[in-house]
Amino acid sequence: ETLTSFFGWNREINFGNCCPPDVVVWPRSVEEVSALAKICHHHCLPIIPFGTGTGLEGGVGAVEGGVCFSLRNMDRVLDVHQEDFDVTVEPGVTRKALNSYLRDTGLWFPVDPGADASLCGMAATSASGTNAVRYGTMRENVLNLEVVLADGTIIHTAGRGRRTRKTSAGYNLTNLFVGSEGTLGLITKTTLRLYGVPEAMVSAVCTFPSVQAAVDSTVQVLQAGVPIARIEFLDDVMIDACNRFNSLSYPVAPTLFLEFHGSEKSLEEQVTVTEEITRDNSGSDFNWARDAETRGRLWKARHDAWYAALALRPGCKAYSTDVCVPLSHLPQIIVETKEDLVLNRLTGPIAGHVGDGNFHCIMVMDPNDQDEVTRVQEFTERLARRALALDGTCTGEHGVGLGKRALLREEMGPMAIEVMQGLKATLDPKNLMNPGKVL
Amino acid sequence: ETLTSFFGWNREINFGNCCPPDVVVWPRSVEEVSALAKICHHHCLPIIPFGTGTGLEGGVGAVEGGVCFSLRNMDRVLDVHQEDFDVTVEPGVTRKALNSYLRDTGLWFPVDPGADASLCGMAATSASGTNAVRYGTMRENVLNLEVVLADGTIIHTAGRGRRTRKTSAGYNLTNLFVGSEGTLGLITKTTLRLYGVPEAMVSAVCTFPSVQAAVDSTVQVLQAGVPIARIEFLDDVMIDACNRFNSLSYPVAPTLFLEFHGSEKSLEEQVTVTEEITRDNSGSDFNWARDAETRGRLWKARHDAWYAALALRPGCKAYSTDVCVPLSHLPQIIVETKEDLVLNRLTGPIAGHVGDGNFHCIMVMDPNDQDEVTRVQEFTERLARRALALDGTCTGEHGVGLGKRALLREEMGPMAIEVMQGLKATLDPKNLMNPGKVL
Ligand SMILES: Cc1cc2nc3c(=O)[nH]c(=O)nc-3n(C[C@H](O)[C@H](O)[C@H](O)COP(=O)(O)OP(=O)(O)OC[C@H]3O[C@@H](n4cnc5c(N)ncnc54)[C@H](O)[C@@H]3O)c2cc1C
Ligand SMILES: Cc1cc2nc3c(=O)[nH]c(=O)nc-3n(C[C@H](O)[C@H](O)[C@H](O)COP(=O)(O)OP(=O)(O)OC[C@H]3O[C@@H](n4cnc5c(N)ncnc54)[C@H](O)[C@@H]3O)c2cc1C
Repeated sequence: ETLTSFFGWNREINFGNCCPPDVVVWPRSVEEVSALAKICHHHCLPIIPFGTGTGLEGGVGAVEGGVCFSLRNMDRVLDVHQEDFDVTVEPGVTRKALNSYLRDTGLWFPVDPGADASLCGMAATSASGTNAVRYGTMRENVLNLEVVLADGTIIHTAGRGRRTRKTSAGYNLTNLFVGSEGTLGLITKTTLRLYGVPEAMVSAVCTFPSVQAAVDSTVQVLQAGVPIARIEFLDDVMIDACNRFNSLSYPVAPTLFLEFHGSEKSLEEQVTVTEEITRDNSGSDFNWARDAETRGRLWKARHDAWYAALALRPGCKAYSTDVCVPLSHLPQIIVETKEDLVLNRLTGPIAGHVGDGNFHCIMVMDPNDQDEVTRVQEFTERLARRALALDGTCTGEHGVGLGKRALLREEMGPMAIEVMQGLKATLDPKNLMNPGKVL
Repeated sequence: ETLTSFFGWNREINFGNCCPPDVVVWPRSVEEVSALAKICHHHCLPIIPFGTGTGLEGGVGAVEGGVCFSLRNMDRVLDVHQEDFDVTVEPGVTRKALNSYLRDTGLWFPVDPGADASLCGMAATSASGTNAVRYGTMRENVLNLEVVLADGTIIHTAGRGRRTRKTSAGYNLTNLFVGSEGTLGLITKTTLRLYGVPEAMVSAVCTFPSVQAAVDSTVQVLQAGVPIARIEFLDDVMIDACNRFNSLSYPVAPTLFLEFHGSEKSLEEQVTVTEEITRDNSGSDFNWARDAETRGRLWKARHDAWYAALALRPGCKAYSTDVCVPLSHLPQIIVETKEDLVLNRLTGPIAGHVGDGNFHCIMVMDPNDQDEVTRVQEFTERLARRALALDGTCTGEHGVGLGKRALLREEMGPMAIEVMQGLKATLDPKNLMNPGKVL
């Protein structure tokens, strides 16, 4: 049970064996959310916000029972402001649904965690993913939130209806709720920054003799000011899994998947500069793609990484680690981590948002093999501590959820944790909002 | 006295007539700051953090007396990480000092509020300035803060020594302290994101027949994905003042000052696209500059705007308004504001960071003319309410300070203000940190 709660597992089992809520409600408006929250507050019932359940840290498990607020019926896209590059969405709207909706506007929302998560859920976990290196994470792209607090109070974190690109008006409540993982309030609306759809895109794949060479290329590309849109690292094990899963034949070696956005002319220059840098680092020639279909095929390996990893051992489950370190420490931590995996006989192909210093080991394991599960847990903690020792964090984008609370304490130190506990107690004195998570 | 406190005036008078502190201390280390804070805490003495005193909203006035912590003696630049694009600085380090220090690294810190403010003070006010349109504000560029709380406790908002580009580890304390204007704690270190110095820069000036044409050009340039580094608006009155102050001869009309950063090739394209857009909006031909000296001369008009405004009426004082609205509302609010100025016989040339929707009227007035001062105060409040009615904010970058507390309440609504008050009470239960500001 400790292990299940450490790993969350919620993605596959949703409210499975360990932590189902007592009730699920499907409110249709912020007023209903508020009314229901008031009832919970009155009766001291835990409130668990539920977006699309794609979170990887057990965030929607009802560890103390209570009421699950499924917000999928609130699914309107509100107020697209084309000239101002912003939009407001309700919590039932997913990333893909929004981008379909925007198709004819020339605008898009770039933050992409792979899964088709709800945008409010992404705000709640401070999600990011493959193109944060260019467009930022949810922290940089949420302009305002409507939030229902534990007692049913409705607030707007930047003031009702406000959507300026910047503000210095009072404390930054917006970014206090971004990343709060449902422990401070229910997000019932998020106002997001949008971007112009780039005139053109080019994707490329490049193979390297070593992790160091791939990471050095990344640093140099960023240093050269190339506004690269995605730069993703896959290790040899991951590439091998992708080859098997998709019948591909990429060289089994450290690999970068790249994507460039811009005008035709600027793409040309971005690609030239990047090719030069990768060549200087002994990278292979680019395998590259322009049209949407070929780009899709090229990136399919990266997009299916999770499923390719799972397919390595049918019947097994997967848990994704999520450390993030300063760029210069990436080679060391990846090399040490690969040694650790081998030493402990673990399957953990690596995929990383290397431009942010963030990478994942997709730990594939037999949940019925207690010994293996224990080894994975110990490995995961060693990995996190290795990141902490290198000025890093135990979670770059998935959040703390259930399993990383002890690590968070190590990362922040007792005094900062006390401050966080103080904030939590102020906003949710009865500890009803998603209890047992984060702190 | 109400008026003095409304306008702050602190820039020119520092702890002048109305609000000097009882004591000024110059600690040399975080330990000294902490020890002094403990003494203040024990004796219930207000603590007023002081950076370089360039703040425009009376933030350093000691409205309840107390101890001013001047942090200028803590002036070390610590830990430049060239490969990781980050640096840590103490509160005595100003923006210009940091950029001189970085000269040989190929890196720079772009956030530029005009004044040579301390970087920790800029974090405290969530400053931005001319190139936020490309590089973001302090909110996007602070990675970590060391903070001494009211009771002397030392915390690191992202954990001690951590400096990853992103994190989902617990509540975002960093951005709670960014913009807190000294009311939640003393910032004794800030870790900042750095950028590669662009290969080349080009500046340009362009004149328009109307405010609408200038703003339309701005929107279209952003929509076209031009990664413009600065795009500043000056109205006819401001241009006229600059012409007089610097013996220049710009046409007296709405004007955009632009700056492009990038490689030679990308600059070419950025300039071509932008020129096309401005021409379509009946803009004049670009008056443009490549080398540093000519660029400096070209931009001098913009950089000296504050002093040029003051020179319009020798012996007068100036107060800068600071509203920010969604881009599409800029023409309306600027036009209405100019009418309001004329109607009320006020001198208020306009300069704006138009790419962010943020603009300032530099209100030049005779502080001894009570009638004029009252008219300015009334105008300022009307302007803020006009912004609020257009989904905007009463402060895009200067902060709330003393004078905008009532406006903040209108902007946020009573419930969000209550949340802010709750946060303040948790972090500073005795209300010792810069009392009377923000809330
Ligand atoms: C295959 C796969 C790959 C992934 N890759 C990435 C990646 O690259 N980058 C990345 O960042 N993430 C990644 N994720 C994680 C995931 O997509 C995010 O965590 C997502 O942001 C969660 O959104 P959700 O709507 O599914 O939230 P849920 O899973 O429903 O909830 C997650 C947490 O947020 C809270 N929450 C949800 N909605 C709300 C709301 N409206 N108000 C308040 N709290 C709420 C919940 O209580 C819970 O604590 C991946 C997931 C999968 C399955
Ligand atoms: C001519 C001129 C033009 C300007 N243009 C712009 C502009 O374009 N954009 C913009 O954003 N700003 C602008 N400003 C405002 C100014 O530069 C900023 O407000 C600046 O960020 C404040 O920094 P400081 O070190 O001078 O802080 P101070 O003025 O000393 O203090 C400002 C506030 O921050 C608090 N504070 C200062 N240091 C700390 C610390 N270490 N820890 C905790 N709290 C602290 C103080 O208590 C006070 O409340 C301009 C100012 C001038 C004079």
